[in-house]
Amino acid sequence: MLGHPYTGRIYPVSRSHAEIQGLPAYATVAAIPEPVDLAILIIPAEFVPDELERCAAAGVKAAMILSSGFAEARTPAGEALQARIVAIAARHGIVVCGPNAEGYANTAAALCPTFSPAVDNLGVPLVPAWRGRGRVAVVAQSGGMAFALFDRGRPRELAFSYVITTGNEACLESFELVDHLLDEGTSDVVLVYLETLRDPRRFERVAARALALGVPIIVAKVGRSAAGVRAALAHTGAIAGDPAEYQAMFRRHGVIEAADLDEMLDLAAAFSSCGDRLPAGTRVGIGTASGGGGGWLADACTAAGLDVPLLDPRTRARLDALIPGYGCSQNPVDATAQAILQSGYAELARLIVESDAIDAVIMIVSARLAASFEREREALTALTRDSGKPILLWSYTLPGAGTAAIVGQAGYPLFTSMPGCAKALAAMAHYRAIRDRR
Amino acid sequence: MLGHPYTGRIYPVSRSHAEIQGLPAYATVAAIPEPVDLAILIIPAEFVPDELERCAAAGVKAAMILSSGFAEARTPAGEALQARIVAIAARHGIVVCGPNAEGYANTAAALCPTFSPAVDNLGVPLVPAWRGRGRVAVVAQSGGMAFALFDRGRPRELAFSYVITTGNEACLESFELVDHLLDEGTSDVVLVYLETLRDPRRFERVAARALALGVPIIVAKVGRSAAGVRAALAHTGAIAGDPAEYQAMFRRHGVIEAADLDEMLDLAAAFSSCGDRLPAGTRVGIGTASGGGGGWLADACTAAGLDVPLLDPRTRARLDALIPGYGCSQNPVDATAQAILQSGYAELARLIVESDAIDAVIMIVSARLAASFEREREALTALTRDSGKPILLWSYTLPGAGTAAIVGQAGYPLFTSMPGCAKALAAMAHYRAIRDRR
Repeated sequence: MLGHPYTGRIYPVSRSHAEIQGLPAYATVAAIPEPVDLAILIIPAEFVPDELERCAAAGVKAAMILSSGFAEARTPAGEALQARIVAIAARHGIVVCGPNAEGYANTAAALCPTFSPAVDNLGVPLVPAWRGRGRVAVVAQSGGMAFALFDRGRPRELAFSYVITTGNEACLESFELVDHLLDEGTSDVVLVYLETLRDPRRFERVAARALALGVPIIVAKVGRSAAGVRAALAHTGAIAGDPAEYQAMFRRHGVIEAADLDEMLDLAAAFSSCGDRLPAGTRVGIGTASGGGGGWLADACTAAGLDVPLLDPRTRARLDALIPGYGCSQNPVDATAQAILQSGYAELARLIVESDAIDAVIMIVSARLAASFEREREALTALTRDSGKPILLWSYTLPGAGTAAIVGQAGYPLFTSMPGCAKALAAMAHYRAIRDRR
Repeated sequence: MLGHPYTGRIYPVSRSHAEIQGLPAYATVAAIPEPVDLAILIIPAEFVPDELERCAAAGVKAAMILSSGFAEARTPAGEALQARIVAIAARHGIVVCGPNAEGYANTAAALCPTFSPAVDNLGVPLVPAWRGRGRVAVVAQSGGMAFALFDRGRPRELAFSYVITTGNEACLESFELVDHLLDEGTSDVVLVYLETLRDPRRFERVAARALALGVPIIVAKVGRSAAGVRAALAHTGAIAGDPAEYQAMFRRHGVIEAADLDEMLDLAAAFSSCGDRLPAGTRVGIGTASGGGGGWLADACTAAGLDVPLLDPRTRARLDALIPGYGCSQNPVDATAQAILQSGYAELARLIVESDAIDAVIMIVSARLAASFEREREALTALTRDSGKPILLWSYTLPGAGTAAIVGQAGYPLFTSMPGCAKALAAMAHYRAIRDRR
C-alpha cells in the first residue's frame, strides 16, 4: 500500500508492534482516532471472527479478509470459523469480502491492499496515462489468476479500474461486486474468474443489467473436469456445478466465455479499444503484407465463425492501383511488403474498411519496430475517428516497446494470438447482435 | 549477411555497381574468381531465368530465388517464367529453392541471406549460447511466418538450426528439405508451415523416416477455409487440398498438427527441452501455489486429452507433511504460496514426479522474477537429471528477463499459454505412444 501514491490514511493494528513500516500502530481497532472505512485482515484464521466483531463494534463499514483456513480447509473448525464470519457480518451489517482472498487494487485511488507482487515495482503507473476510457475491472475467486490478468494486461496497455479477489465468498459474491461496478459506472468491461455461482438469480439480474448498459462481461468458469471440480472445492469450498448448464446460462444472458487468461485479455483489449465500434455483422476484411499470414488468419477467422468474403469490384479496383501483380486484392488482401512500404498500413486499411462487403477489418502487421507506427500515428488516428467499423491488428512478430501504446492511443487493439484476435472479433459481432435483438 | 559473423566469402554481382556495402562487386557471376556454392537471386522476375542459366553455366551448385512475379502472379507470363526455372534446373542439375521466397538462415554458419528484419540487430546470438541439444528447424512456404517463428521463439530461448523459406517451390519442396535435415542430423524438431504438399509419396517416406529417428515434425497446414484456399493459391500458386485428407495423412504418420504460431512454438519448446523424457502415458500431476490456477489447468489438461488422477496415499502423505491445512495434496496439488516459499518448486515437483500414479508433471509457477529460479537452479537441474519423466512449467505471470534461460538450462520448457502447455504435453504422450507401437 505504501508503494503507491494512495492519499488516504493507513492505520496498522498490532498487538506486538508500536510501529509498522514507519506508521504508528494501534493496539486495537477501537484505538484508531477516526472512523475507519475498511479493515484489511491478515491475521491467522482463528483470530479473525473476534477481530471482525471488534471492527464492526468500532464502526468499520467493510472488511477484506485475506487469511486462509476457513471453509476451503474442509474441516469442522474451518467451517465453524467461516459460519461465525457470516453471522457477524449479518448481525452488524458490515460488508465482508473473502476470507481466503488476496485483497484488491483500486487503481483510481492507487489503493492496493494485497500481497500480490504483481502490483509491486511496476516501473509504470497502475493505469496507462493516455487511456481515458475503456477501463477493465477484474473480479475473481482466485487471487493468483486475478493479478495474473493485471500482470499480463498492463504491458498490453490495458487500463484496469479494479482487480478484486473474493476467495471463499462467505458474504460478498462475485456478481454483487459486478453489480456495484455497474452502479459506479467507471468500468467498461468486466472480467470474472468463477469457480461457482452461489446465487444464480442475482447473476441473471446483474448480467441483464450489464447487457442493457453495454458493459460486456467476460467469464472464465473453472470446474469443467473431475479434477477441476475437486480443485475448486479444495480452493474456495466451491461447488463447481454442471458446465453445460453454466454455458447455457451465460449464452442466454450475453455473457462471453473465455477459455484462458490470454483469451480473457484478448476480449478485454478488443472491447475496451473499440468501444461502440462493434461490427454490424460477421464479414471481415483482412489486409496483410504476408501472404502466408493472410491465408492462415482467414482459416482462423472462419474457424471462429466469421466470414471472409470476396471484396466488391470497386474496392478491388482501388486496391489493385496500390498492389503489385504478385499481390492480390481478393480478400485476404495480400498487399505485399512493397505496397505497405509505399502506402502504409492506414491507407490499406482505409480502402478495405470503406467496402460495403465487410463489417470489420483485421490488419496483419509486424509490430516489431514501433517506428513505422509512430510515422503513421496521424493517419491511423484519423482512420478510427472516421470509421464506425472496428479495425484490429494482429502482429506476427512480437510487438516492440511502445507499439501497444501508439496503436492503442490511435484506437486499435493489438493482438499476438491469431485465434485470439479472430475469436475476439467474433465475440464483438455476437455481442452486438444480442444487444440489437434486445 | 554482413550483420552476422559469417566467415564464408560473399561476392555481389551487379551490372551497375563496382562495390556493394564495401564488397567489390562483379559484373557477371562468371567473373567471380572461385567456384561458388550458392547464388542468391534478388533481381526482377523477368531477368531470373537467364541469370540462373548463367549461374549454372558458371558451375554454381545451388540457387535461392527471392524474387516474386512467377506462378503466384497467376498470369501466363509468370507461369512461363517459373516453367523456365524448372527446365533450367533440370537441365543443369542446379538445386533451386523458391522463387517468391524470403531466403533463409543457417545459424551454425551465421549465414542469413534473407530480407527478413527478424534476424537483424538481435542484441543476442542467433542461438542461445547454453543450448547444446534441442535444435529446431523451420521449413515454410511463407517467409513472414517462417521468420515470425524465429522472432517469437528466440526470446523463449529456442535454438533454431535453420529457418528456410521455400515460396512457390518450383523445384525443391518442403519435405525434400526436411529429408535433407534428417540426413544432416543437427535438427531435433522440425516445424513446417505448409500451403500444399506437391508430392504426397515423398511426404510419407520422409515422415516415416523422421518418426523412426525420433525427430518430431510439427505442421501447420493452411487452406482450411474457402478464403484460406484462395489465399494459398494467390500466395504461392498452391492448391490447398482437402483438410480432412491432410489431417488423416498427418495422423497416420505421427506428424503433429498445430493451429497457430504459438502452438507450434509451444510444441517445439516441449520436445526440444524434454528430449527423450517423453511421458509413458497421459496421467499428469499438477503442482501449484495458486489454487485457482490448479483447477483451471486441470480443466485444460482434461480438454487436451490428459488425465489428472488422484495421487497415491504414499505420495499424498509426503506432500501433506509440507502443505498447510488450507492447501490440498489430491491433484492438482495446491501447495499454497506458503509451502512454495518454504520448500521451493523443485522439492514439490520431486515429490509429485516420484509418484507411480503419474507420467508427467506440470508445475504452475510465477516466473515474473528470475531470482527465485536462480536460487533453485541446482535443485531444478538435479531433478531433471534424476527423473525420466518430463516436467513442464506454466507461468501465470509473464516471465521476467532471464527466467527462460535459467529454467531452460535446467531442462524445463516454460509456457505462458495454459492450453498450449496442456496440448504440448498431450502431443508428447501421443508421439511416444505412436513410436512405441512401431
